[in-house]
Amino acid sequence: MDFYGYIAAFLTTIAFLPQVLRTYRTRSAEDVSFLMLLLFISGLVFWIVYGFQLHSLPVLVANVITLIFNISILLMKLLYTERKQI
Amino acid sequence: MDFYGYIAAFLTTIAFLPQVLRTYRTRSAEDVSFLMLLLFISGLVFWIVYGFQLHSLPVLVANVITLIFNISILLMKLLYTERKQI
Repeated sequence: MDFYGYIAAFLTTIAFLPQVLRTYRTRSAEDVSFLMLLLFISGLVFWIVYGFQLHSLPVLVANVITLIFNISILLMKLLYTERKQI
Repeated sequence: MDFYGYIAAFLTTIAFLPQVLRTYRTRSAEDVSFLMLLLFISGLVFWIVYGFQLHSLPVLVANVITLIFNISILLMKLLYTERKQI
C-alpha cells in the first residue's frame, strides 16, 4: 500500500539534484524565484517537525535530503547574484 | 497533532506560485532545470495516486495544486525556450 508513497517521496526528493547540478554548472539561478526557495525551505522545516511527531522515518529522510538540496540552491543563488553585482 | 503537517503542506504548495509569477513576468526559465520539473511532476502524480489510496484529502488537494503550478512552469519554460531559438 505504501509503494506509491515511497516512489512519490523518492521522485520529489531526487528531483532537486539536477537543479543543484545545473545551478553549480551554470553559476546562475536568476530565473529561480527567491521567494519560492524561501517558502519551500520553510515548508520543509515544518515537514521535518511533522515527521518527528509522526515518528515517520520516510517523511524525515525525504525532507532532510530535500532541505539540503534546496538550501544549496538558495546559497548558490545568493552567492552568484552577489558576484554578478560586483 | 496534524497542525504542523497542514502548515508544511500549505507552504510547500504555495511556494511554487512566486515561481509561476516570476517565469510569466520575465518570460524566462532558462535557469530552472527541465529534469527537475520532469522528476518533480512525475513524483506529484505518484503523490496523487497515494492520496487516492489513503483517501487523504489534504494529500490530494496539496499535490493537485502543486502539480498545476509545476505544469504551468514547465509549459512556460518550453514555450519561452522555443521562442528564443527562433
